[in-house]
Amino acid sequence: MKVFLFDLMHYKGDLDRFAVDGVLPHRLGRRHFDAQAAIETYAQHLDAWEEMERVGFDGIGVNEHHATPFGLMNSPNLLAAAAAMRTKRMKILIYGNLLPLHEPLRLAEELAMLDCLTGGRLIAGVARGAQREYRAHNVAMGESRARFDECVDIMRRAWTEEVFSYQGQFHSYEDVSIWPRPVQDPHPPLWVPVTGSKDSIEWAARNDIAITPGVSAAGTAREDIIRYYAQCQAEEGRKVTPGHLNFMVDCYVADSKAQAIKEYGPHYMYCFNTLIKYDHPTQDFNQKGYYSQTAHEHMRSGAKGTLADISMFNSRMTEEGLKAQAEHMAWGTPDEVVERIITEADQAGAETVLLMCNRGAMPQEMFLNQIRRLGAEVLPRLQAHKVTRVPFAEGVGAGV
Amino acid sequence: MKVFLFDLMHYKGDLDRFAVDGVLPHRLGRRHFDAQAAIETYAQHLDAWEEMERVGFDGIGVNEHHATPFGLMNSPNLLAAAAAMRTKRMKILIYGNLLPLHEPLRLAEELAMLDCLTGGRLIAGVARGAQREYRAHNVAMGESRARFDECVDIMRRAWTEEVFSYQGQFHSYEDVSIWPRPVQDPHPPLWVPVTGSKDSIEWAARNDIAITPGVSAAGTAREDIIRYYAQCQAEEGRKVTPGHLNFMVDCYVADSKAQAIKEYGPHYMYCFNTLIKYDHPTQDFNQKGYYSQTAHEHMRSGAKGTLADISMFNSRMTEEGLKAQAEHMAWGTPDEVVERIITEADQAGAETVLLMCNRGAMPQEMFLNQIRRLGAEVLPRLQAHKVTRVPFAEGVGAGV
Repeated sequence: MKVFLFDLMHYKGDLDRFAVDGVLPHRLGRRHFDAQAAIETYAQHLDAWEEMERVGFDGIGVNEHHATPFGLMNSPNLLAAAAAMRTKRMKILIYGNLLPLHEPLRLAEELAMLDCLTGGRLIAGVARGAQREYRAHNVAMGESRARFDECVDIMRRAWTEEVFSYQGQFHSYEDVSIWPRPVQDPHPPLWVPVTGSKDSIEWAARNDIAITPGVSAAGTAREDIIRYYAQCQAEEGRKVTPGHLNFMVDCYVADSKAQAIKEYGPHYMYCFNTLIKYDHPTQDFNQKGYYSQTAHEHMRSGAKGTLADISMFNSRMTEEGLKAQAEHMAWGTPDEVVERIITEADQAGAETVLLMCNRGAMPQEMFLNQIRRLGAEVLPRLQAHKVTRVPFAEGVGAGV
Repeated sequence: MKVFLFDLMHYKGDLDRFAVDGVLPHRLGRRHFDAQAAIETYAQHLDAWEEMERVGFDGIGVNEHHATPFGLMNSPNLLAAAAAMRTKRMKILIYGNLLPLHEPLRLAEELAMLDCLTGGRLIAGVARGAQREYRAHNVAMGESRARFDECVDIMRRAWTEEVFSYQGQFHSYEDVSIWPRPVQDPHPPLWVPVTGSKDSIEWAARNDIAITPGVSAAGTAREDIIRYYAQCQAEEGRKVTPGHLNFMVDCYVADSKAQAIKEYGPHYMYCFNTLIKYDHPTQDFNQKGYYSQTAHEHMRSGAKGTLADISMFNSRMTEEGLKAQAEHMAWGTPDEVVERIITEADQAGAETVLLMCNRGAMPQEMFLNQIRRLGAEVLPRLQAHKVTRVPFAEGVGAGV
């Protein structure tokens, strides 16, 4: 297996002191911002990525968020450029640029530059983004799908054609040859997270793009997504392999489950009760045309358990609830962490795992300690494990 | 004085082999692109910037170009992020982001991130850009000024207001608080190159923004620009100081003028005869509404000697012409280089010089050698020199 760390890069400053009845103000403004905390956030995370490479991680994942201390990577591409300087071997996964919010030609140029700056180590994840980002950048959520599709078309043509012209719904270009071009041929791999929408699965399958199926292993969503993806891939004459799949998992290594909960619990709760809640969606995505009418019809649970299910943003995590939840998580001894991850990888048939181990703006020493323990006690066993089959894809399309 | 190096970051690959009768194809496409050359271009320049800091430079300047091997910095912000990792002390001057081609909120976010990533070392230069960039990104040149103004307004409000809303001609935003904010208070310094346009001078003076007056010391353009800038600053009740002014100068250190010409000449000519000529403007800027009707009326020479004067793109540099030109340039012994730069700095009254010493994709050893010689033989004397007055600004506004 390949092991990446997915870094959320929360702002380091303490925000709970601004909360009223446990809720942050509608907007955190300039007066709430501590520049020193932001400087430290970036510096410490970049130090940590350097350490990740030393201890053997296969890749670092970054993402795009706007106008929130939940994540300081408004431009994940800037962090990828910085990471390119701090690492020599690891893959750099941008997961992902929120395509509907980008000018496609500029994004194609940036990703081409990053592929050169990393010497071909870029994985160019693409995503649609959440309500907050659309609101900040004033893009209609109902245009999300059309903008996404157009952006990918333009990027691929800018990367691969000698000279391209394009007449789109949102963007048009004439007689353009970008310079530089990507290093990887024909272009950096695209990955896409599939949090539930049928249209995303069909698009990924049609374009043979690797997916992250579902936000967790809970329920039947992941299975339904993989089955439908395999079916769509079969229609294109392709089989889904472990290389097509990756998954995210929360983990924390400690000497025992109890110690993990004691150490990591407060940070994990800060992530869910404070950071995620800031400027959280108050209206259902479905109201805005973000999801199509049929987006969830391939799933037995419908939208439940997907990102369209906003109930997850409206509940408050308690210590008791966390303890119960942690029983089933990859928190605890290295043995437990390894076994849970391998079980989940084998179930999904996924070759790559994206670990999340630093929720809640933990102190740097704690983050570095996790990276070192993961490197010494978890990575070698995961990297030695080989995922050979995709169980949910077996039999699919056999009759086609 | 403060000494920056302004890096053009030409693509390293040899392009002359694609030339027909000394002219490159209308478009260099994918088949002309050598990924290894691009990888080396970035890697070597970043190595050189690290060396610059070691030998004592005050800053590194980068710029934005699109769709041309003349400069690989489609996003100068990505290079600034990389430079932030490779340096600890030097200022990082982006000179500049081409505002009319950017989505203003995203640019404000990126520059805020860069100010954090550099620990407050960012100078956020702003510019309008050349015809090629507008064509590639399909932005009307006639909208250049309005888009520029709107972009600056939006960035400043995003940086400084608690929460901002904006209804513009091109971009609108509602109830946005970006996160992170800049480190520098109220925001990173803005610099603007003034290549001749009256409107740019008025805008810079109104906003007390430092300028680079004119593309060279030749003729009367620089004097006219500084006088008019001083007059406009006086109307705001301010005096122009050496801190308001900087200038670019081509230099090359060698043991003699003849040696400089022999070593640097071929590269300098490659820059002007091949790189600058690629996809060069074929129509006058003035035809497209880029300059206002009155843009040059403050200058005795009119548009001549400014970037609006396209005759400079249509002539071919010869060895003989270069030799004659080099007589008056800061090429030669350290003494000559120092003396010419100090003379020009004192004439302009400019505190900062932006050196250009690596035109024409010279070999890395030659570039590093220049950096080291400049560091050892030129920088200490320039940095010891103090520019105390702005001669062209004296007396201006005294009667107001």
